[in-house]
Amino acid sequence: MIRFKNGRVLTLDGSCEVENKEVWVEGDKIAFVGKPTDEQLKTAVFEREIDLEGDLLMPALKNAHTHSAMTFLRSYADDLPLQDWLFTQVFPMEAKLTGEDVYWFTRLAILEYLTSGVSASYDMYFKLDDYIKANIDSGFRTVMCDAVSDGKERAAVVEERYLRYNGMHPLISFRLGFHAEYTAQYGLLEAIGELAKKYKAPVSTHNSETAKEVADCIKKYGKTPTALFDSLGIYDYGGAGFHCVYLSEEDMDIFAEKGVYAVSCPCSNAKLASGIAPITRLIEKGVKLGLGTDGPASNNALDMFREMYLLTVLQKLRNSDAAALPADEVLSIACSGSARAMGLENCDCIAVGKQADLTVIDLNKPSMQPIHNIPKNLVYSGSKENVKLTMVAGKVLYEGGKFFVGEDDRTIYAKCAEHFEALKNR
Amino acid sequence: MIRFKNGRVLTLDGSCEVENKEVWVEGDKIAFVGKPTDEQLKTAVFEREIDLEGDLLMPALKNAHTHSAMTFLRSYADDLPLQDWLFTQVFPMEAKLTGEDVYWFTRLAILEYLTSGVSASYDMYFKLDDYIKANIDSGFRTVMCDAVSDGKERAAVVEERYLRYNGMHPLISFRLGFHAEYTAQYGLLEAIGELAKKYKAPVSTHNSETAKEVADCIKKYGKTPTALFDSLGIYDYGGAGFHCVYLSEEDMDIFAEKGVYAVSCPCSNAKLASGIAPITRLIEKGVKLGLGTDGPASNNALDMFREMYLLTVLQKLRNSDAAALPADEVLSIACSGSARAMGLENCDCIAVGKQADLTVIDLNKPSMQPIHNIPKNLVYSGSKENVKLTMVAGKVLYEGGKFFVGEDDRTIYAKCAEHFEALKNR
Repeated sequence: MIRFKNGRVLTLDGSCEVENKEVWVEGDKIAFVGKPTDEQLKTAVFEREIDLEGDLLMPALKNAHTHSAMTFLRSYADDLPLQDWLFTQVFPMEAKLTGEDVYWFTRLAILEYLTSGVSASYDMYFKLDDYIKANIDSGFRTVMCDAVSDGKERAAVVEERYLRYNGMHPLISFRLGFHAEYTAQYGLLEAIGELAKKYKAPVSTHNSETAKEVADCIKKYGKTPTALFDSLGIYDYGGAGFHCVYLSEEDMDIFAEKGVYAVSCPCSNAKLASGIAPITRLIEKGVKLGLGTDGPASNNALDMFREMYLLTVLQKLRNSDAAALPADEVLSIACSGSARAMGLENCDCIAVGKQADLTVIDLNKPSMQPIHNIPKNLVYSGSKENVKLTMVAGKVLYEGGKFFVGEDDRTIYAKCAEHFEALKNR
Repeated sequence: MIRFKNGRVLTLDGSCEVENKEVWVEGDKIAFVGKPTDEQLKTAVFEREIDLEGDLLMPALKNAHTHSAMTFLRSYADDLPLQDWLFTQVFPMEAKLTGEDVYWFTRLAILEYLTSGVSASYDMYFKLDDYIKANIDSGFRTVMCDAVSDGKERAAVVEERYLRYNGMHPLISFRLGFHAEYTAQYGLLEAIGELAKKYKAPVSTHNSETAKEVADCIKKYGKTPTALFDSLGIYDYGGAGFHCVYLSEEDMDIFAEKGVYAVSCPCSNAKLASGIAPITRLIEKGVKLGLGTDGPASNNALDMFREMYLLTVLQKLRNSDAAALPADEVLSIACSGSARAMGLENCDCIAVGKQADLTVIDLNKPSMQPIHNIPKNLVYSGSKENVKLTMVAGKVLYEGGKFFVGEDDRTIYAKCAEHFEALKNR
């Protein structure tokens, strides 16, 4: 067992209280949370004891929307509107990607997640075998969401992947999904709805990221993307909408009624000038929330601390209300809500039997002092510099600035540079 | 001399190009920038050679508006509107501060500046002797801006401090200023205008931070704060307006004509729901810009990386234009503009004869990879985790996560906790 001792613990198991207690990890699970008796300590066998020295142990953050392999486009084509950026820069480069490219670009993203206290990503991309290998080789947890586009015949691909990837490895799962309404034909949307019903499974997709996307959909179908998906049964078993910047009141009702998660990506939406999602209104309407970075080409960091900060301060701006979306709610969205949005209910908090996806926050940094209120410190002044350790499924993958992912970080950087060079010249 | 070698250098000396060259530091100044000849290398005597191993050397960031000692209120009274926060939370606590409190709370802020690659602060506070001692003891550079309020008799205090503090120490300077229109009587504003004329000196103050502040001023004087200050000669020799969220077109003309810097504090303005400053419009009108964090009680971090990110993404949102305020301009505002806004023209870039206020950015972190475009990487995915070294006036004060400020960081944290406890019970 691994013992975390002499620290503060934020379990997020129903509350945002920080308490002095211990957490023990056995294999990939949390085995004990509390103050151990002398008897318990006498019989426990620890392979490692981690002295937190007063630092904070908390559930790892979960990145509920990303395209990890897009690291290769970071700072390559910034400062463009979303549609130009997507169609003239991103898609042509992506068309040339090999599986090996995706492998290395994903490994780079995983390094960055670990520096930000993130234990799992909800990822939409392609070359999935290579993507999966990058995650397994790194020891990182991922939930893939299918990103299929085009015609109805592509639904068979989604089904095949759904059956093949689920259950293949404890760190890997796969959920029904498609890229977006604006890249799917009606037949594909219908077929996805059929799959949802057949497997009684949630479906996730980009939804209402831009005003243009919604306007075009209304022009084409006479309905918002959400109403369209709902009419086809796509959301019958829940799922997630990524971005959700332009949901109507009726869309929000559908989200609430069907238990669909609205996954917000505030940094990406700001950087691409897409807008600010109506988070406080979604909360009022009872919609469940998750938080994600979106891909590194549009963000450009994979930093859930910056994401938490923007989530709340943009709501304060949007509502002209400094009290909007307090820190406790933000933490709960980023750790627990995000985990549940991607189907990782077993990773949503620190409790016995849950997966040991944890992070240690260094409170002995100037940004965390004085220690008046730890949740507020995390959300309002936390950053990657505070992440001391990240554990996924009971294994320490990042500690004290060093990575334990089966490959040297500098090798990963060099491989990425080499693969990008080859891609450009292909 | 200290030699920085084998690195990339971003001088910001008229361009945002990154080049492979060396920088040598002699005493507190930059002595050489370029590729040295064998002859130069033979005759140079280096007390230390810093091998950058490909990392980036750049001018340190300058924090052009802050209240450093307010670290004691970080995460203490969040999620309140500005006026409530100021009058019910901040002012009553501040009234009880001792000089020794200010000393330790300032030392804490300086630690955080160093972790964020910041070499100088433009600070508004009180207990100035203690504040100055904290800076000198730490080796940190500061420009104080007077924060006087109330009646005209207080102008004599400003003048006395102006004469006393300027020239007292190479790291310390002092500029004419006052807290804000809404805490000053008309007589004080008149007297400050007289001082500006007497010393042909710039004046800095809070200006148009909230819509309420501007509306109240118009109600009282029939003029915006900027027009009022201008009518009294306060801006006759330039200066700075802190925040500048609600400037009218005419206000901007005054700023441009008088050479007044608009210092933006995007994180604080967002967190307090004050609004988004019209930065791109200010640039169109020819107004010079600086960037600051504001105090840690309203931000809550003292992190110029987060400030740079918010500066640009909030402009993209405000203008519905993803191309608004590109990264090069942001860097120039945060390093050079901020330096000049506080009168530190000798710290605004890397060039021979300038002060050696420098920072080293670790490019071997996942967030900085791949290296397509370093200025964009800095602004869009940079954070404190990338700051490897911060040098002020030729002295390394922060390197590899360790502080060299004449006092142990943990002692400073303990002193702050102790002083806060005493303050609460006073």
